[in-house]
Amino acid sequence: MAKEKKQPRPKADTPKGFRDYFGADVTERKQMLDRIAEIYHRHGFDPLETSAVETVEALGKFLPDVDRPNAGVFAWQEAEVPGIGQGGGGAGDWLALRYDLTAPLARVAAQFRNDLPSPYRRYAMGPVWRNEKPGPGRFRQFYQCDADTVGSASVAADAEICAMLSAALEHAGIQRGDYLIRINNRKVLNGILEAMGVTEGPVSDDVLRTIDKFDKVGEAGVRQLLTTGRKDDSGAEIAGVGLAPEQADPVIAFLTSKGADNAATLANLRAAVGASEIGAEGVDELAQIADMLTAMGVGEDCAVIDPSIVRGLGYYTGPVFEAELTFEILDEKGRKRQFGSVAGGGRYDGLVERFTGQKVPATGVSIGVDRLLAALRAKGLMGGQEHGPVVVTVMDRDRMGEYQAMAAELRAAGIRAEVYLGNPKNFGNQLKYADKRQSPVAIIQGADEAARGVVQVKDLILGAKIAAEASHEEWKAQPAQTEIARDGLVAEVRRILG
Amino acid sequence: MAKEKKQPRPKADTPKGFRDYFGADVTERKQMLDRIAEIYHRHGFDPLETSAVETVEALGKFLPDVDRPNAGVFAWQEAEVPGIGQGGGGAGDWLALRYDLTAPLARVAAQFRNDLPSPYRRYAMGPVWRNEKPGPGRFRQFYQCDADTVGSASVAADAEICAMLSAALEHAGIQRGDYLIRINNRKVLNGILEAMGVTEGPVSDDVLRTIDKFDKVGEAGVRQLLTTGRKDDSGAEIAGVGLAPEQADPVIAFLTSKGADNAATLANLRAAVGASEIGAEGVDELAQIADMLTAMGVGEDCAVIDPSIVRGLGYYTGPVFEAELTFEILDEKGRKRQFGSVAGGGRYDGLVERFTGQKVPATGVSIGVDRLLAALRAKGLMGGQEHGPVVVTVMDRDRMGEYQAMAAELRAAGIRAEVYLGNPKNFGNQLKYADKRQSPVAIIQGADEAARGVVQVKDLILGAKIAAEASHEEWKAQPAQTEIARDGLVAEVRRILG
Repeated sequence: MAKEKKQPRPKADTPKGFRDYFGADVTERKQMLDRIAEIYHRHGFDPLETSAVETVEALGKFLPDVDRPNAGVFAWQEAEVPGIGQGGGGAGDWLALRYDLTAPLARVAAQFRNDLPSPYRRYAMGPVWRNEKPGPGRFRQFYQCDADTVGSASVAADAEICAMLSAALEHAGIQRGDYLIRINNRKVLNGILEAMGVTEGPVSDDVLRTIDKFDKVGEAGVRQLLTTGRKDDSGAEIAGVGLAPEQADPVIAFLTSKGADNAATLANLRAAVGASEIGAEGVDELAQIADMLTAMGVGEDCAVIDPSIVRGLGYYTGPVFEAELTFEILDEKGRKRQFGSVAGGGRYDGLVERFTGQKVPATGVSIGVDRLLAALRAKGLMGGQEHGPVVVTVMDRDRMGEYQAMAAELRAAGIRAEVYLGNPKNFGNQLKYADKRQSPVAIIQGADEAARGVVQVKDLILGAKIAAEASHEEWKAQPAQTEIARDGLVAEVRRILG
Repeated sequence: MAKEKKQPRPKADTPKGFRDYFGADVTERKQMLDRIAEIYHRHGFDPLETSAVETVEALGKFLPDVDRPNAGVFAWQEAEVPGIGQGGGGAGDWLALRYDLTAPLARVAAQFRNDLPSPYRRYAMGPVWRNEKPGPGRFRQFYQCDADTVGSASVAADAEICAMLSAALEHAGIQRGDYLIRINNRKVLNGILEAMGVTEGPVSDDVLRTIDKFDKVGEAGVRQLLTTGRKDDSGAEIAGVGLAPEQADPVIAFLTSKGADNAATLANLRAAVGASEIGAEGVDELAQIADMLTAMGVGEDCAVIDPSIVRGLGYYTGPVFEAELTFEILDEKGRKRQFGSVAGGGRYDGLVERFTGQKVPATGVSIGVDRLLAALRAKGLMGGQEHGPVVVTVMDRDRMGEYQAMAAELRAAGIRAEVYLGNPKNFGNQLKYADKRQSPVAIIQGADEAARGVVQVKDLILGAKIAAEASHEEWKAQPAQTEIARDGLVAEVRRILG
């Protein structure tokens, strides 16, 4: 037998890269997601909640060359437990935490393809997990909020997603004018490549990578990178793709084709794609999306065709969208900057194919939950407003029932209230507690007050103001504390809470 | 280089013991939890959302004799990733999915003990994971819903939990009279053991185990098991604890001390514990809880002292509570049976001690989310009521914008609506889709109707009724379909939806 060793005490720590959410962190996110869900639901989208755990096989992250398929995901191997051996996820199978909400949707769309309506509109909100190096503000568990339409090849589905995104942002609290959804189309880019005489392969990949740098290096930089290369800021030589100067023209035309309105942009794009059929199809799709958005009351001030949006063009197969918040906030150094992107999405076709071999068209959008919440807080639309509960203090342990009756009365009137449940001996501790709870009001009733049928009601908000501003004499006068008849308790608390 | 092998298609399956939740499964649970959270919040409880992942060390499941601490939990070892090595959860550490919401609360209470208010009231709702053999209705991921007060030794905290549980059940939809919270106290049982002359040890453990069988074997059975043993139904001989017959008397007195009201029960308990100090303390606590519940307006028809509630008495250190639903439902064989337990809890002291060495008193309750939801459905209080969205059908692909405008108008009026986004060629498929979506209304507008400025509004609920009941001639008359002016669309749909 091994000697019994005294175990050291365990460390009370979250694992690295994980965090806890307290109070308003939880309720504010929930409030925002509830608002978004309301809009999704009204658009005919149904909620879907898949389990956190999937087989690595279904997630598609199985890497045959490594012992442990944990690159990017949290994965583990099922133990050989009797009875956990049949069906998906048998003994010895690798399981993993989902890393996004799209992979589980793909699995569901394949698994339930005979039962789900087609097209299937679904939304999903919940945590996902990434086995990545954590950093400041970068966690290994975070929320995603997705809406997708599976099984519709029509660009009406893309237009609907854009209109719904616009409605969701507004319902969450972002005002019209404070956001802009920009729409591009991968097919137009394919047309551009065709016009350049570049077929799919290493060169088109190079062109895509170069386009991705448009934000940073601008028109001239892209032109250099597509042809002979350029020097970056550090003076390092970046090799060019090696295209002829005239081959770069259609790319530049594409990236800079944004006009004064959608009609102008579409005309520029038509010119840029030249005789390419796929390009013309892409421009037609954008034109249809623009028309449908107008029909749904979503104007160009909310959603606009903008070919300079290139993020995700490599991944998506048709329309691509990105929502930006256009107002300025102050960064950590006090400089003004644009808030930037809070949602993105587009059309992709490979969703279910891995499982069934069938191409199923799908389109969807993902809202950056933490970023949108940060934006609402930056705009003062959320956070810091809510008071804590009214605290009924305990002067006399034997009359606990009466204190609880007061709290119950307040709650019955819809007022958040609690009785102090720590050791009541030191009254100062009770007021410190009320302070920590950000209580707006403290209720006090000693034996004397009880005998006289009254209670003391202490306005802690006013009290804090007086304590900060008033002289000692004024403070001593304690105008923030009022004695009232016991049966006037609810009315007086209501009056203070406004 | 390895040969490139064609990978077989992955299986589209949830891992064994996991499931997906669709539509109403998600919204109904959310609705129930929202109602419960409202009550918890009003009682001064704050939400806490810990991450799904904890260190195995913090969870307290580390078994030093096995290579893999996965008995009961899903656990894995951190890879040696540069940068994921400092603080809690360093490289090589074992991580695990939480198996309940109490272990993370213990970790949080220890980790943030200097920042949290004391007492700390918190509620938590979310999934937990168990690496156990799945069975029918038994899943390896399921929801828990807990409320706990950490840092209060006062039985006022226990009374508050009981009153709050009563309010939560009622706010969720369970009517007064349909539930009963039964309250017992481990200290009374300790007094009983003292009165029997049994000290803590193997014999007291045996007595506890025997008491746990009271539900099954009744008074006579418990008496046999405490003394000389008994034959079970199969005729097998079950050994007795070996107590003298008079030693069994206090246990029987305890288990059968429920009187006509709390006062009678408390008197019986006082007699049963005799001269035991801890027993008297336990009875006093129950008396205080009873008084405080009365003060809070929670009568004996809602919460009652009942010493026959013995579940958890071995785990808890003070008051113990259990909520039962008292109405009858039909089981799978059509027999009437009581619905049974939906929540339980009590007082425990070892919460934070593992981490800090300090005993911190705590009390709390856990609601069985799936059971309570099943109860609400069994009572017809939830489920099956909601219609799907209004479906705007597509007769003419070129007028997609107009169809989307109709859906947008309906949504602006607060009506759930969507445009059919599948291939519109076969109109029958569109109506089949509307059927699958449980749509109440379909909107139809062909080129002819558009030219005349009208739409067809098809009442699908009435239509289904007619199809089921009417003759072919009546059916052909199609009274469930009405032609109205285009600008009367919203009003007509509103009329049908009632």
